[in-house]
Formats: sequence, structure tokens, C-alpha cells
Amino acid sequence: MSMLDMVDKVEALMMDLGARARLAARALATAPTEAKDAALRAMAAAVAADLPAILAANAEDLARAREAGLAPSFIDRLTLTETRVAAIAEALREVATLPDPVGATIADWQRPNGLRIRRVRTPLGVVGVIYESRPNVTADAGALCLKAGNAVILRGGSDSAKSSAAIHASLQKGLAAAGLPVDAIQLVHVSDRAAVGHMLAGLGGAVDVIVPRGGRSLVERVQAEARVPVFAHLEGLCHLYVDGAADLGMAVSLAVNAKMRRTGICGAAETLLVDRACAATHLAPILAALAEAGCEIRGDADTRDLYPQALSASEADWRTEYLDAILSVAVVDGVEGAIRHIERYSSHHTEAIVTEDAAAAERFLNGIDSAILLHNASTQFADGGEFGFGGEIGIATGKMHARGPVGVEQLTSFNYRVLGTGQTRP
Amino acid sequence: MSMLDMVDKVEALMMDLGARARLAARALATAPTEAKDAALRAMAAAVAADLPAILAANAEDLARAREAGLAPSFIDRLTLTETRVAAIAEALREVATLPDPVGATIADWQRPNGLRIRRVRTPLGVVGVIYESRPNVTADAGALCLKAGNAVILRGGSDSAKSSAAIHASLQKGLAAAGLPVDAIQLVHVSDRAAVGHMLAGLGGAVDVIVPRGGRSLVERVQAEARVPVFAHLEGLCHLYVDGAADLGMAVSLAVNAKMRRTGICGAAETLLVDRACAATHLAPILAALAEAGCEIRGDADTRDLYPQALSASEADWRTEYLDAILSVAVVDGVEGAIRHIERYSSHHTEAIVTEDAAAAERFLNGIDSAILLHNASTQFADGGEFGFGGEIGIATGKMHARGPVGVEQLTSFNYRVLGTGQTRP
Repeated sequence: MSMLDMVDKVEALMMDLGARARLAARALATAPTEAKDAALRAMAAAVAADLPAILAANAEDLARAREAGLAPSFIDRLTLTETRVAAIAEALREVATLPDPVGATIADWQRPNGLRIRRVRTPLGVVGVIYESRPNVTADAGALCLKAGNAVILRGGSDSAKSSAAIHASLQKGLAAAGLPVDAIQLVHVSDRAAVGHMLAGLGGAVDVIVPRGGRSLVERVQAEARVPVFAHLEGLCHLYVDGAADLGMAVSLAVNAKMRRTGICGAAETLLVDRACAATHLAPILAALAEAGCEIRGDADTRDLYPQALSASEADWRTEYLDAILSVAVVDGVEGAIRHIERYSSHHTEAIVTEDAAAAERFLNGIDSAILLHNASTQFADGGEFGFGGEIGIATGKMHARGPVGVEQLTSFNYRVLGTGQTRP
Repeated sequence: MSMLDMVDKVEALMMDLGARARLAARALATAPTEAKDAALRAMAAAVAADLPAILAANAEDLARAREAGLAPSFIDRLTLTETRVAAIAEALREVATLPDPVGATIADWQRPNGLRIRRVRTPLGVVGVIYESRPNVTADAGALCLKAGNAVILRGGSDSAKSSAAIHASLQKGLAAAGLPVDAIQLVHVSDRAAVGHMLAGLGGAVDVIVPRGGRSLVERVQAEARVPVFAHLEGLCHLYVDGAADLGMAVSLAVNAKMRRTGICGAAETLLVDRACAATHLAPILAALAEAGCEIRGDADTRDLYPQALSASEADWRTEYLDAILSVAVVDGVEGAIRHIERYSSHHTEAIVTEDAAAAERFLNGIDSAILLHNASTQFADGGEFGFGGEIGIATGKMHARGPVGVEQLTSFNYRVLGTGQTRP
């Protein structure tokens, strides 16, 4: 086959996936809650029953990854065990227990002419999910999209191709068992990177939104190339601000938790800002506790004056999402100084203030335009599960449609239903 | 000046507008309701006081338009009179009376760990409005964006440049009088079409959303080129379906109103679908009433059998938004037949069903994915004012963020405010 035939073949195959997804989406839009939940439970049962096949497929992926000399952390994310497969099945069952967002009335009012207007949740349509080599995303993303009445086209990393295909086969068994179209959850089997390009172009209008799940380079490519809306965050450069009116004990505990509980998640704090008004009393104890917990401190000149053990922070530090046990620290002039620093350097994902002063908290929450703002709580709560959304497909930092954790409700649109008794417009 | 200098100059000028808008948006985001409403009232007063200047500017535009031999309908839309200017001022005062969406709590819940989460409306940021030669849009769009806490960059048609500039000068007087930044409402004064291209590219990240107000060619260009989200509808190819269980009197009155009240608006019906089950009794009286009202009828074969006066409809008719006293008519097989026709040909703006059968209405409302669906009411109610939104900047047919009439509430985003008492994540 010539190169050109190859290109045409990938495009034709992707367009076909798109057309099938569109058809499945039409059926799903009016599928009863019971059918979707039955499918989710059948998917869980199929994943459990197919454990040997899933582990065998994963073993093939792992062998190739080890041969290729991939990093241990990568191998760990790729590895499936009996326990991890059981967790995948359990997550599917949990999505079945969530309330169905589709058909819910969001607003309902009557006009003076008697017209009754209802705003009702509807599915988005077709979601494209592009992810790296975490096989569990295949099941998680498939389940959340299905619950919201959307068809999904999944494109996983090539290193986990066999594992994802095995899990996907179980998902389709569950769909079939519940009488739902198997095209509701499709997996792109071509490893050709052009497949991603076609998804980003929208497959001829078939794709309503793209959700990238992965590192910065993946998200950057998706945001640069996508011709359809994208739910994503490029990075989580989150700030914790300790105000002059902060309780010291609380500030220490929140700073250690926000930075060190898990350093690799997008809600981990990357920069600590301390109010000049309390720097003399609060800064050293907070930084000592962080250092004790194993954190490297990079401070500005004011920070190093009060805590000489700190390394020197450069301009680049304020712009860096470490995703590691490293923290940049600056002394700022009150809540206004904190807002100025955050508006300049933040990725507008999540920021927190520690203070006993309600007015300072109010000013901080109103003055910063990030997706999630916390008062006296750890930035590590920036997570759909912690919000009570029961699972999320990602976190969005864009201001359109979905913002913050993207759960089943955020995977829907809405329309208006107007009920009359023969009203004509004068 | 060389061509290249010219290009650079337009780009520099537009980027400067973007940067100013961004700064103004930051100030507006926390501007109190009273300041915004005071500005709106001061804008209304300035428009009224500046009547002579506005009419003089409009006379210049009109003279040029007449010289250029532009169509009478175009001249009419361009023309300002004392009454029309008073209406512009009145519309500004009405926006002042609308509730302020910014800061409103949309949802509020508590987690088992005591965290209280509030979802709060925030401004979108900077809105770009690209419109044709209707001078009143300058004031309407400026007012709605201001009320929602957004800065706006207005780019009107060149034929109304002087009128828009005069109205814009009055708006900025009002902003200044209320102590709000005059850059909250900016007008693009360069007529160069490249200015639009820069806006569609987002002015270096300064523009959050583009709203095109105008005909199909403008909206098509915007949708094709925009690198930022767009709130728009390409066309309103709206359907009225008369079900077998429709009351004949209601069907006649709704059909005549939906088509003929005003034929040039996007909510006007363009296609009538009649259920085969009632075609023998309902079709002829409905079409006779429409013909009586001056409507040209283009029917399929079944329609012409029952109403021989109808012209013959071609495939193109099902895809045409006439915006005129012309109606295409087809006989369909029940509500399922109506849904099939609509899903195939509709622009997903607005569709209505006439029926006394609640189950048929339910099936129609659930089975069609258009922005507005009506039961026993005229499609001409598809309008923000009729929905009680108190003015709209347009109607959106996309499924993301804003859908249907786009009023002040739809010009906002939201974020999450999490209030804790020192919670750390386990």
C-alpha cells in the first residue's frame, strides 16, 4: 500500500468512527437511565469476568515497555494487577449509582402570557478523549460519557494499546448485554498519529468536544490544533497565600498538605505567598515544617532573610509547575500583593488563602479569576471526587461551559422546552 | 506609508485595544452593581443629550449610503430618528433594571468533611462583537456586556461608522460619569477588514468569546476563522409540526403567526410538517389561511394532492431559510417522521409541535436536539425578551456554554469558592 493510500485509509476509518458515534449518540440521548445503569453494571461484570484476558494483554504491553527501557514510573502507571482491575470494575459500578443528569430541569419559570419555559439538561453528543498510557482511563472516560448520554471515541497511548483494547472489549460486551449500541464507546485501534489530527479537526462535525488526559505536551498539541472545544488544563500552577491574619497552626498544616500530600497532582501547591505582616512570625515555622517533610525551598530575597536555609528563587520558579517536592516562596504585601502575584503567574486552576479575616478572604475570592478558590482548606481538594461529583474526566481551566472538575453533569448541554396553550406572538 | 507599515499598524492598534480591554475587564469584574447601573443610566442620559450629534453623524452615513445606491431595507436599518434614539436610551435604562448576574450563587453544598462549596457566577472577561450596519447594536451589546461585568470590543459595519462612533462617544461619557474605565466599551475605528481577522484570532489571548451579529456570510466567516469560542447561529431554519392530534383552530393560528408575523427574523418558521393522520382535514385550511395572509406555498407531492394551489417544493426548499413570505410544506408519518425530517434539515435553532397528545409532545421534545423546542406555541417566541431575559445579544445554536437566547446571564462564566476551617486532604 502506498503512503497516500495509507493516509486516505486512516482518514476514512476515522470518519467512519465519527459517523457511527453520531448515530450511537442519537440513540443514547433518549436511552432510559435504567438502560445506561444496567450497561455500566454489565460492563463491570464483564471486566471482572475478563480478568485473565486483560492481564494477558497487559503483560504484552509491559513486555514491550520493558524492552523499550521505559521509566519505572511509566511502567507503574501501565501495570494492571488483579486489585487494579477490580478497582476499574468498582469505578464502573460507582458511575451507575450517580444521578442521571440527562433530562433534569435546571430552571423552570412562567411568563406573563402563560408560556412555561423549562431549561433541561441534554447530552453534549460525541466526546473525543485523547489520553496517554493509563489503561484505566479507557473504562473511566467511557463510563462517565455514557452516563451523560454521550457517545465517546477513545484514543489511548500506543504503549497501552493491548490493555486498552482488552478493557474496551469488556465495555462493549456490557453495552450489548444492556441493549445499547456498542458504538457508544469506540476505541481508535490505528496507532497512526494522524488519527489524533482527524479527531482534533472534529471528524466532519461529528465531535462536539475533545478531552485530553495527559502531560503538558499532549494538552498543548490538542489546544493548538483542535477545531472543536476542548476541556483541559495545561497545568496546575496553584498558590497558597498565608495572610497576616492567618492562624499559624492552620497555615503550617495547610502548607504541608497542599504541597506534600501528593506532589504529582495538578492541585498540589507550587508557590507559597506569605504576607509581610506575619512573615516574621509565620514564615520560618511553615518552611521548617515543609523542609522536615522533605521539601526543597526556593525563596525570594525577603524569604531568605527570614529563612536562610532557602535556596534562591529565579523568575522561572514563579512560572514552574514542579510536580515534585519543591516549593517557591515569596513575601508579598497583603492580599493585594498576593492577588497581583497570582494574576501574573497563575495557570488559574486553584488558589487558596489562609486567614481568620473574613474581609481579606472575600477580597481574595472575588479578586482572582481561577477555576477553584479555597479559604482555609488545602489546594489538594481540587478534585471531582472531593467536590462530590463522583468521578471526573479531568479539570478544566477554560472559562467556557465546563470549569474546574468535569464530572457527568459538566459533560452535558441543555435546551429550552416551552409549553404553551396556543400562544401566538403579538 | 507602505502597505506593510499599514498592516503592522492595524495589528498594533488591535493588540492595544485587547490589552486595554483586559485591564478594564479586571476592574469591571469586581465593580459593584450600583456602579454598573449608574453607568448604564448615565449612558442613557448621554445618548439623549447627544441627540443632535448622533442624528448629524447618522445623516452623514445615510448620505453616503444613498450615494452608493444601497437597498431601501438597508437604508431603513441604518436610519436613526428622534424616536429611535429615544428607544436606544430606553433600552440602556432597562438593562440597568436587570438583576446583576455576577456574584450570584448558582449552587451551594456541604461535603461530609465540612467543606462548603459554592458555585458563583463570574464575568467571561472580554467579549468581541462584530456586527453589520445597525447603529443600535453599539448601545445594546455594550450595555449587556457591561451588566455582565465584561469589557467589550465593538466592530460595526463601515456603512454605519459615523453613527456608531457618535453613540459610542455617549456611552463612554456615561462610563466616565460613573467612575468606570472608559475602556470597558471600545469601538474599533479602523475600517480595515484585517481588524476583524485580529479579533477572530483573539488579540493574543485577550478575547474570550466572539459574538457575530449579522447575515449568513458574516457568521460563516466568523465561525470558519475564529480561534476563540463563538456564540452564534448561522441560520434559523425552524419547523412547525402539526401532529395528528392537533386542534385545527390552534394549528391554523400558530402556523400563520409562526410564518407571517415577521418573516425576516430567525425564529420565523420556514417549513411546515403535517402528520399524514390529519392531513386530509388540517392541511388545506392551514395553507388557505397562510395563502390568505400572503404566503407562497411550496409543497411536496402529498401536499399538492391535498392543496393543488401549492407550487412544487424541491430538495433545496427543505434546506432554505427564506426569511420571506414563502413556506415549504411536507406531509410526514407522525411524530417520528417529523423528527427524521427535522434532524436531517434543521439548523437546530427552534422547532414547534402542535398537538393535544401529551405523549407525542414529550417524544418530540426529547427526540430533537435543537436549542428551543415549543409545544403549542409559535416559533416566533424564540427571543430573549420573550424568555424574560430582558434583552439578548443574539441566539446561539452551538451546544457549548450558551444556547438559545444569549442574555446577561449567558454572558457570564462561574467558578468554585470552597470555604473550610483548616481541612487537609487525608
